[in-house]
Amino acid sequence: MPFERTAYQTRLSRLCSSSFFQGEIQALILFDLNNIRYLTGFSGSDGVLVIRPPTAILLVDGRYVTQAQEEAQDTDLYHYQDKVDGIEAVLEPKDGDRIGFEASAVSYEFYQKLADRLREERLKPLSEELNNLRAVKDDDEVSCIRRAAELAGGVLEAVARTIRPGISERDLALEIDFGAKRAGAERMAFETIVASGANAALPHAKPGRKILEYGDLIVVDYGVVSEGYCSDETCTFCLGSADDRKREIYARVKESHDQALEAIRPGVPCSRIDQIARSCLAKYGLDGYFTHGTGHGVGLEVHEAPRISRNSDTILVEGMVVTIEPGVYLPGQWGIRIEDTVLVHENGADILTKMPKDFIIL
Amino acid sequence: MPFERTAYQTRLSRLCSSSFFQGEIQALILFDLNNIRYLTGFSGSDGVLVIRPPTAILLVDGRYVTQAQEEAQDTDLYHYQDKVDGIEAVLEPKDGDRIGFEASAVSYEFYQKLADRLREERLKPLSEELNNLRAVKDDDEVSCIRRAAELAGGVLEAVARTIRPGISERDLALEIDFGAKRAGAERMAFETIVASGANAALPHAKPGRKILEYGDLIVVDYGVVSEGYCSDETCTFCLGSADDRKREIYARVKESHDQALEAIRPGVPCSRIDQIARSCLAKYGLDGYFTHGTGHGVGLEVHEAPRISRNSDTILVEGMVVTIEPGVYLPGQWGIRIEDTVLVHENGADILTKMPKDFIIL
Repeated sequence: MPFERTAYQTRLSRLCSSSFFQGEIQALILFDLNNIRYLTGFSGSDGVLVIRPPTAILLVDGRYVTQAQEEAQDTDLYHYQDKVDGIEAVLEPKDGDRIGFEASAVSYEFYQKLADRLREERLKPLSEELNNLRAVKDDDEVSCIRRAAELAGGVLEAVARTIRPGISERDLALEIDFGAKRAGAERMAFETIVASGANAALPHAKPGRKILEYGDLIVVDYGVVSEGYCSDETCTFCLGSADDRKREIYARVKESHDQALEAIRPGVPCSRIDQIARSCLAKYGLDGYFTHGTGHGVGLEVHEAPRISRNSDTILVEGMVVTIEPGVYLPGQWGIRIEDTVLVHENGADILTKMPKDFIIL
Repeated sequence: MPFERTAYQTRLSRLCSSSFFQGEIQALILFDLNNIRYLTGFSGSDGVLVIRPPTAILLVDGRYVTQAQEEAQDTDLYHYQDKVDGIEAVLEPKDGDRIGFEASAVSYEFYQKLADRLREERLKPLSEELNNLRAVKDDDEVSCIRRAAELAGGVLEAVARTIRPGISERDLALEIDFGAKRAGAERMAFETIVASGANAALPHAKPGRKILEYGDLIVVDYGVVSEGYCSDETCTFCLGSADDRKREIYARVKESHDQALEAIRPGVPCSRIDQIARSCLAKYGLDGYFTHGTGHGVGLEVHEAPRISRNSDTILVEGMVVTIEPGVYLPGQWGIRIEDTVLVHENGADILTKMPKDFIIL
């Protein structure tokens, strides 16, 4: 379902009237394709957006003219032969103006060409200033993420029923990926993690040839992209039977997860959420085994602002969509991670992911 | 199968003794992960290679230390906390030296940090100078590409037998992708193209909901990655029966493909190969419908040097691996492309791709 045309108009006019253009820059060149998609709807893999309030011009080459006309109906289009020529053409120089650009989304090589043409002193590199552009989601975006999470959950629920000792991590990951694509996912949001036994103690394990065995804990961290938006969820299953230690630590991780979720509401610092998840595990002497941040924003990218971590300085705002994903990793033994993606709602966390997070024995 | 250790030593020492370091630079910072893999074996997704002949140091962060130790056994390792700090630490300044870096593989934002630390005047941006670093393949690389092409061909051969009217382009593409991964491919080399009917007239069509119909031409352009190396091949099948016009144009495209293949040998300019493919189609008045270059190099990336096009200034060298892929696209009607990946051998083209290129009616 395409967005209402006004979603893009709203986003663009919000950016145009932001403090951004009150200060030292009069125009902005965007290269990051997710930011361009967010502001215009254009989903092609090459293009530039030039904003000089109140106008925004999307620049594309011949491959993308038709697609841009269809997708970016609220934005003026410019068809370039050469990208630098195009940017120069739409940015008619005005005396003394300064032009911000996304310094992390452009190569030094391209920057050099641009600086030669536009005069280096007019260009102002921006980096962190734009980090939060997409952090607060509007209703259309939340609906997309919700649908992506529903699609993903339906697939994992079906695939989980088929998990048996004897199949490999890699084949299980393939079943999830293939199921998601059959169900209509554009692609996976990231390489699906299926980590079992000692591999589950590695937070970023790649699914390998290891065969799932009776008694294994299996961490499945997966997400799909649907309508451009990502889902992100982690389930830890137990295959066969679980000993008391696994049950106990699962309950601790779940408690950490639940306490962090309960603390979510507008106005709470992200660092506080991280602290709550972490100190819950600390009560049981497990915080040393929780070796990553508690969560991150999810949207057009699977990792975007805000970060839910110790040193985040972001305050939660209604409309942010973030993951909560505490874990405990016992090196050489096994690991457990429990992750949901949630909307920061005025009343608290609205959980978008669909799989139950109770201890599930397959 | 891992490369013999000496393959990396050979590549590094060839680079170290090249004209590169005879001229104005004394050290080189590589950011491109394919170039780093080529020179060291390291296949992680973040790292930096600093070369000051005769030494080469691979810099990685904590996530990749173990992997780098295993994969990059011929290269010294440096474990950094901060990437710029690490580069500064291994590049002890020497008076008057200049340091080349890959300007297209680093963001302006990172460049700024580096220039602040190393002094901008020491840094020399390189771009086209490094384009041909990987163009000539050694035997190990050719074996990898050959195995990737064999894996891919086996999958398409099996899937092609199942193609029937009524399935969608997207589902056929999924069967190919899933089959390839089941057969051991790391991933697809690019998004598989399945384009039928009028979609086949778009060289870069995305597989969509269109249902394959009796009489359709179906362009399948696909490649797998195996042991890091890509394959690239295009077959055009006919579903059901073909009229004379389709048979005739298929034969013309095949003739163009075959003539280009026959012309391949060391010493021939890439532009000449393109011209041969193009003028063959021109004999039949079809060159106006051949709207892209004739081919490109294939290796760790599916598109790499050299380009087989009108304005290429590269001369074929024994050991290059390139595609030959002429096509005819009749807008709104249908299209035909025939593509093989071949090794430039002293006696001519050694075809690495495996599917037959005769006119196949399914």
